[in-house]
Amino acid sequence: MSTKIGILGYGNLARGVECAIRQNPDMELVAVFTRRNPETVSILTEQVAVRPLSEAVMWKDRIDVMILCGGSATDLPEQTPEYAKYFNVVDSFDTHARIPEHYANVDAAANEGGHVAIISAGWDPGMFSLNRLYAGAILPEGNDYTFWGRGVSQGHSDAIRRIPGVKNAKQYTVPVDGALSLVRAGKNPELTARQKHTRECYVVLEPGADSAEIEKEIKTMPNYFADYDTTVHFISEEELLKNHSGIPHGGFVIRSGVTGWEKENGHVIEYQLKLDSNPEFTASVLVACARAVHRLALKGETGCRTLLDIAPAYLSAKSGEELRKEIL
Amino acid sequence: MSTKIGILGYGNLARGVECAIRQNPDMELVAVFTRRNPETVSILTEQVAVRPLSEAVMWKDRIDVMILCGGSATDLPEQTPEYAKYFNVVDSFDTHARIPEHYANVDAAANEGGHVAIISAGWDPGMFSLNRLYAGAILPEGNDYTFWGRGVSQGHSDAIRRIPGVKNAKQYTVPVDGALSLVRAGKNPELTARQKHTRECYVVLEPGADSAEIEKEIKTMPNYFADYDTTVHFISEEELLKNHSGIPHGGFVIRSGVTGWEKENGHVIEYQLKLDSNPEFTASVLVACARAVHRLALKGETGCRTLLDIAPAYLSAKSGEELRKEIL
Repeated sequence: MSTKIGILGYGNLARGVECAIRQNPDMELVAVFTRRNPETVSILTEQVAVRPLSEAVMWKDRIDVMILCGGSATDLPEQTPEYAKYFNVVDSFDTHARIPEHYANVDAAANEGGHVAIISAGWDPGMFSLNRLYAGAILPEGNDYTFWGRGVSQGHSDAIRRIPGVKNAKQYTVPVDGALSLVRAGKNPELTARQKHTRECYVVLEPGADSAEIEKEIKTMPNYFADYDTTVHFISEEELLKNHSGIPHGGFVIRSGVTGWEKENGHVIEYQLKLDSNPEFTASVLVACARAVHRLALKGETGCRTLLDIAPAYLSAKSGEELRKEIL
Repeated sequence: MSTKIGILGYGNLARGVECAIRQNPDMELVAVFTRRNPETVSILTEQVAVRPLSEAVMWKDRIDVMILCGGSATDLPEQTPEYAKYFNVVDSFDTHARIPEHYANVDAAANEGGHVAIISAGWDPGMFSLNRLYAGAILPEGNDYTFWGRGVSQGHSDAIRRIPGVKNAKQYTVPVDGALSLVRAGKNPELTARQKHTRECYVVLEPGADSAEIEKEIKTMPNYFADYDTTVHFISEEELLKNHSGIPHGGFVIRSGVTGWEKENGHVIEYQLKLDSNPEFTASVLVACARAVHRLALKGETGCRTLLDIAPAYLSAKSGEELRKEIL
């Protein structure tokens, strides 16, 4: 059985989905839908339709799962509930504070349409959330730590780019080694934002811009940089393209906890990701979720789920027998 | 709702279960069953019954989940199918090669009795298996590595103790740092048993035993030591008790894989455990599984499961709403 996939939106994440589908023989890409003029959108897979967004619903009987590749700020809050009426859907909604509201909207729409949805798939939310859940269920008395990086934060890079005089910028979030070491040693430190992460900025200036002024503006920017030790490097556009064009990311989820009658034994559970491409890894999670969504839909289930609700075996192309024999 | 737990068998693992129940307010220990004379068995929890194994079935309406704490060699292959007829059960069956057969036996018995079973819970099989599954589902093109240690291998310690002239012994399995580094760097090395782990033995001799002869016998023992770089330290009984009485363990599950149209991007997923007490950590997983088993039984499900089949949220004491708000 192959799963027929549609992709809605065609940016970095969607290209990652397209690549991941190619790596999974049980997945088949059948169409890409775009808000742009389809004739201007060139995709990687040969002989796959690129159609205007307005035609998507017409494909509802030809697509098993629609993977929604829009952004969390404005696209997904509208799109996921809308398309869950017509399709089984997967999204990567990552605005943590708005997940309960998004879940409720998508659940209502999916139940109304008789479809299954997985929201907030990816690595955080997603694989990191799973690891927080498992570790907390096993070690109820303990402390959770999540570190991000070293990796590119799109939001922080955008914040720098919005400063007048900045032509281009990349911002890396970097976990502080000393803090990581304390956590790994089970010391349960209390850590401020500044003690957990530093921020490294690579900035290309417009001609005539005042570097001292811009450095100050970055370092004092509330929410984004003021609470962190931030370093700013001014570089040429060539250097930015040569050394900072990738989108790496990753991070650590660590729980340290105690067991024993007198809580005398300590344990540390650590999950770590080192990713060359944040969007391609996220996309790979979305495609595994599409497999699960299709299977749940074939069982007659409906409504919204997150990775926390998905029996792990549903994500794998292997059968239950194969998993018990080879993986367990 | 609290889950009423019975414990069958009372060794290190069972004491760990007893401690873990105390850390989970929604769990309640109601009885311990033993093959020994109950009057000789002193448990940690006050006012909880210790009863002979022969009475266990009489408790079937007073226990929501029976946690089976016997050994995998001879106890569990008999006990889990037997008690799955009368109880929802959890076990830690860890003979990897015999899991398919054990699964089939327990599934038949649990379905016959209208109960739910989770087998092979713990960390390997268990949490390590989950991580192999998730990582393989996300990165279908890649390589898996599992390293164990630094930790005490009961089987290898027992093998040394069976040598005539050996009074006592502890064996540590130790992952090779250089191999770990290559794997973490995404180099995908092919590694022999010897290249992945070394074995450290701490041995107490009987008076008059020939240390050179015993060292040779250990180092050349087939399956256990011959394929590894093994070091043997002869120490006093006092030193063994003082420095080697713990049961620490742990290890690493690492998958490195590639994504991208030309497989140009590499990713490394690592899961790591550092455990002061192997049996207490395993027990903590069993108790989380007991929660899941009880919930599945209340939904009317029956049959055998492994952690690979359990939606993660079932393991957690938190509600779906709480998980989405706090963990996701």
